[in-house]
This record gives sequence, structure tokens and C-alpha cells, in this order.
Amino acid sequence: MVNLARDGVRAMTGSHSPLDEFARIDRFFAPLTQNAPGAFGLGDDGALLPAVPDGRRWVVTTDALVADVHFLADDPADLVARKALRVNLSDLAAMGAEPVGYTLALALPRDFADTETWLSGFAAGLARDQASFGIALYGGDSVSTRGPLWISVTAFGTVLESGVFRRSGATVGDELWVSGTIGDAALGLKVLTGDIAGEHPGLIDRYRLPWPRLALARELSGLVSACLDVSDGLVQDAGHIARRSAVRIVLDGAALPLSTEATALVDSAAALRHSVLAGGDDYELLFTARPDAADAIRKAGRRADTPVTRIGRIDPGEGVVVLDAEGRPMEGLEHAGWRHFEA
Amino acid sequence: MVNLARDGVRAMTGSHSPLDEFARIDRFFAPLTQNAPGAFGLGDDGALLPAVPDGRRWVVTTDALVADVHFLADDPADLVARKALRVNLSDLAAMGAEPVGYTLALALPRDFADTETWLSGFAAGLARDQASFGIALYGGDSVSTRGPLWISVTAFGTVLESGVFRRSGATVGDELWVSGTIGDAALGLKVLTGDIAGEHPGLIDRYRLPWPRLALARELSGLVSACLDVSDGLVQDAGHIARRSAVRIVLDGAALPLSTEATALVDSAAALRHSVLAGGDDYELLFTARPDAADAIRKAGRRADTPVTRIGRIDPGEGVVVLDAEGRPMEGLEHAGWRHFEA
Repeated sequence: MVNLARDGVRAMTGSHSPLDEFARIDRFFAPLTQNAPGAFGLGDDGALLPAVPDGRRWVVTTDALVADVHFLADDPADLVARKALRVNLSDLAAMGAEPVGYTLALALPRDFADTETWLSGFAAGLARDQASFGIALYGGDSVSTRGPLWISVTAFGTVLESGVFRRSGATVGDELWVSGTIGDAALGLKVLTGDIAGEHPGLIDRYRLPWPRLALARELSGLVSACLDVSDGLVQDAGHIARRSAVRIVLDGAALPLSTEATALVDSAAALRHSVLAGGDDYELLFTARPDAADAIRKAGRRADTPVTRIGRIDPGEGVVVLDAEGRPMEGLEHAGWRHFEA
Repeated sequence: MVNLARDGVRAMTGSHSPLDEFARIDRFFAPLTQNAPGAFGLGDDGALLPAVPDGRRWVVTTDALVADVHFLADDPADLVARKALRVNLSDLAAMGAEPVGYTLALALPRDFADTETWLSGFAAGLARDQASFGIALYGGDSVSTRGPLWISVTAFGTVLESGVFRRSGATVGDELWVSGTIGDAALGLKVLTGDIAGEHPGLIDRYRLPWPRLALARELSGLVSACLDVSDGLVQDAGHIARRSAVRIVLDGAALPLSTEATALVDSAAALRHSVLAGGDDYELLFTARPDAADAIRKAGRRADTPVTRIGRIDPGEGVVVLDAEGRPMEGLEHAGWRHFEA
């Protein structure tokens, strides 16, 4: 149901009073529907999505985040909210879709010290990113849990029926591109967990708050042959394109766009290069295109105020190979999903 | 992302290998998309919903379930899956919508004894109800958690733009109706928790496996003035209609449709009447209509093979009152959300 209140009544062990729950909905969540008339102020069992123009279709995507897995339990509530939205908006960008709204399921730990304060920050974060990305809340559900806090977001956007980006469209001879810089978020997590010493607020920000590349996706319409967002790690996600498109991806390791901070860290500790290639949480667009689209892609990047870098090529075969500055395949990428790419 | 695999790679503490995760998607979840070409076999970052005919709009609803709150942790996995789907389908029915598909977020406890067996049962339950209700999986996300198992489902359906059911449409003089029988699920839960002695498999089934009243909703198109599904408890949910419609609801306690099993239990222990009125989990449709629609509503019930019972009337005022067999307001309903209805 849209009603975020059920758990109060239906909980078998412990429970908030439903009065609290209804008050919470009215106070924190109903205001987030003000630009969504079809959400009926969260007062009905579901929401009505807006009509879409002819030729456009709805795209949906679901991403869940769990405390101490996808964010740190003591991360500020507003940043947790914004990250939960943005990882979903990044998926819409990867499909070439324009975001419209989202639904939300939220589980609050029973032993939360100050639920109202946390919810206040959480709702403020949602409101801020709703304004940034032109979206609204279309419903949700709130439950309590003995376990860690979690959030599940389902985001909705629309795409031109003929313009949806897929992972399966890369063909031999295409070039591989990536937006922004790679590795900052993975390094930022290592700073937060103490695995990297020193102050690196820029990297921490990249971990806590990705920026979905919606503007770039809009400008890339009609230019890309395959696309996804880098969330599992550059090499692994390149592997997804390789597998779905039945091609081999050759990554030019020396061409990878690294931030100044990431470059300094990798230069000081070569092992961190692995985090850059496999760490994930980048939420950059990784896409392929015909070589003759290169100029148009650079122009799209400029129009979207988003750097784009050509980082590889599409060959016949399967899997992913990363070449070093001398053009030799890099070793040491047997981690985690690596075998998967070669499968 | 549609990809159900991210957690394996991105988990900060413990993790399944991503190979396991991809294998799980391919084995358990990808087959559930076979009637949904726009789900792209869960191989992309999002799914494309089908186009809808002119005049119809998408309805979305989100409901989350947590182990030992909304179901028992040792409930059979296939029943957990089907309940997660059905509570959402019941919301679509309450909106007058035809179901099309759903997305799923699933958190599996890290210490699960046999995840593969559980997932096998869970996927079988999803497949069975997909067939029963003509729906398909359009994506999801799988994470692991230190806490209890949880499931969040977002369901999509379509509705005639002019035919959406709301909670706010009841007017003075309308009659109040309910489908099926009331209280069985709440009593079934008491059987499962040992608060009611004896064998009551019928009641337990009603708790574990609601039946969304989609066929009835279809037949009621154009007949109802307000509608919701009873999930929080009959009295509380009547209160939702009263509040949203700014009317008073007078429930005829003697007219409530109780199953034979529930009648016997209530006759033997009057306190159980409270569970019937306030227990929740019924997933029956509670709706209002003009008195001259009564014959058509009974005919709709027959066409949908679903009993419908007139249980009250809509008066001026606010709140909910339940009259006993002598027409006196019943006492003892101060539980939980009761004050809310009178607010």
C-alpha cells in the first residue's frame, strides 16, 4: 500500500503506535508528494503515474541499500537518502531514461535512539534531491526491524521507445567510453574504513554521494551502442557489456580517467590500482559507440558539463582484458568476479 | 539496477562470491521474466514496461515484509513469496487496477543455513503466483543482511484513467460493503503463535496466503464510490475511508461476514471479536456505493465468485462506530489506532 503505516498495527513483536506512524507519514513523507498529484498525498493504496507522450515508455529499476553494506550506519541521514535515490537514478541514466518519481520502502531499527531526528534528516535529503532531479515520491511502506536499517527504492522514468540504452548493443570496432573519473568512491570507502590514512574529503564525498549522469545520458541519445552505469567496478561492469554483447573488451589501463587525488594515491601504493579497476560505486556511465561518433560524444560531454574519456575498444571474442602503459595485459585482476568475465 | 548481483561484490563485511550471485539470478530469477520481454532477462540496468492502451494509466504500489513481523521466519519459502506478491496485488485491486508485473528487493540473512533451497522454494512460489495472476518479474535487487530476511515488492498495474478507486469518494447515504470473510487471518496468526489452541488449518492458510480480490475489483468498475483493502484491520481501515472522505462510518457488527471457523471461536471466547474487528491481514475489499447499486454489486460478486456483504452505512460526521446486535455502540475498541479514527 502507499500507506506507510501498516507495521505499527501488524507488528508481532514490539511496535510503534499507529498514531506515531500516521503522524510520521503526514509530517515527513506526504510533503514529498506535492508535485505528484497521482500520489494522492500517500492516502490511497497505490499511486497513479502520469500519462506519457506517445512514443515514450516507462522504465523501472529497483535498488536496495543496507546499513554497513551499502552505506555506513552512522552516515548522515540526508546523505543516505540521497544516495538511495541516486543509485537508482543512475540506473535510469544508464537506460537513457528521464526520471519522474520513485517509491520507497524503509525499515527502521527498533532500537534507533532518535527516529524522529533521523527521519527528519532523511526526508530533507529526499526533498533536496527531488528538487535537484525533478522527481517526486509516489508511495512507499515503512516497517520496523530487529536488524540493520535498510532502504529499497523503485525509480520510474520515461524513455523514447526507440532510444533505450541496452548492454547488449556493442559491436566489434566500437570504442569504449566512460564519464567522469573512476575509483574515487572505492578509495573513499577505504578512507572511511581506515584502510587509507589521511584526509580525503573529496573521495569520501564520491563514496557517499554519487551524481547520476542524467544530463549526459540525455545528450548521448542516439549515439551509444551499449551502456550501463559502473556500480560493481569498472572491469566487472565492462564484463557485463562483453557478455551481453558477445564481444571482447580491451581496456587501455593508461587511459583511465583518475582524479588528482586518486592518481596520487595509486602512485604511492600500486595495490590501490586494483580498487580503482574493481572497487565499484562509481556510478559513471560506461558506454560503447562507433568510432565516427567520437566528436559528437565529446560535444555531448561538453553540453552536459561531464567529462568523457575514450578508454578502450571492442574486439571479437569474449571477456575483458586491461592493457598497461606498454600494451601488456595486466595481471592481478583475479579478484571477485574476474573469472566471470572470462567465462 | 535490474541486476540482482551487486551485493556480492560491494559488501563490506562477508559476501557471497559474485559468481554465486550471477548464477542465482540466471537460475532462480531470470526465468521469471520470460513473459516480460521488457525485463531483458534481468540483463540491463532497468526494465521497459509495456505500452498501455489509450485511456489507461499505470498504478504503482510498494509493500515490504520482514520476517517475524509480516510472516514467520520458518514459514515455507514459497508461501512467503506468494504472500509478498499478493499483499501488493491486493493494493492494485483496491485501486481498481489490473496487475502487469513487479520488481523485487530481497535481503537474505548471511547466516541462512541453506540459501539455495530457500531460493528455490521462493522462486517456485513466485512462478506459481505469476501464472495465477498473469504477471511477470521486471527486475530487482538482492542483498545480504546481518538482520532478518526481508522482501520489498513494487507492483505495477493499469487502470482506466476514469475508473481508479480512491478512499476519498464515500458520500453520506452510501452503503458499506466488504468481500469474503473477516478475521480469519488474525485468528490464524493467533493459532500459529499458540494464543489459540487446536487445529485450524483454514485460518492459518488465510494468514499465510491472502487472495487478492482482483476479479471482484474488475467487476466493481464503475460501481464503487470509495475502496481500499483491509490490511490494518476492519475498523482501522474503515477509519481511513472515513477520514479521507470526511464522513462517519456506521458498521453493523452483527452483519460482519465471519467464516464458520471464526464464528465458532468468537462464540467460545468473546475477546476474539476484537481480533476480528482490529486484527488485520484480511486483504478483503472494503468499499462504499450508492444504495441503488446494491443489486449490481451482488451480481458483480457472483460473476467474480466472491461473496460480498453489506455491513454498514455512511453518515455525516467523522470516525467509525460499530453497532452490536441491539444497535448499541460496541465498547472495547480503544485498541491501537482507534483514537485515530475519532481524531
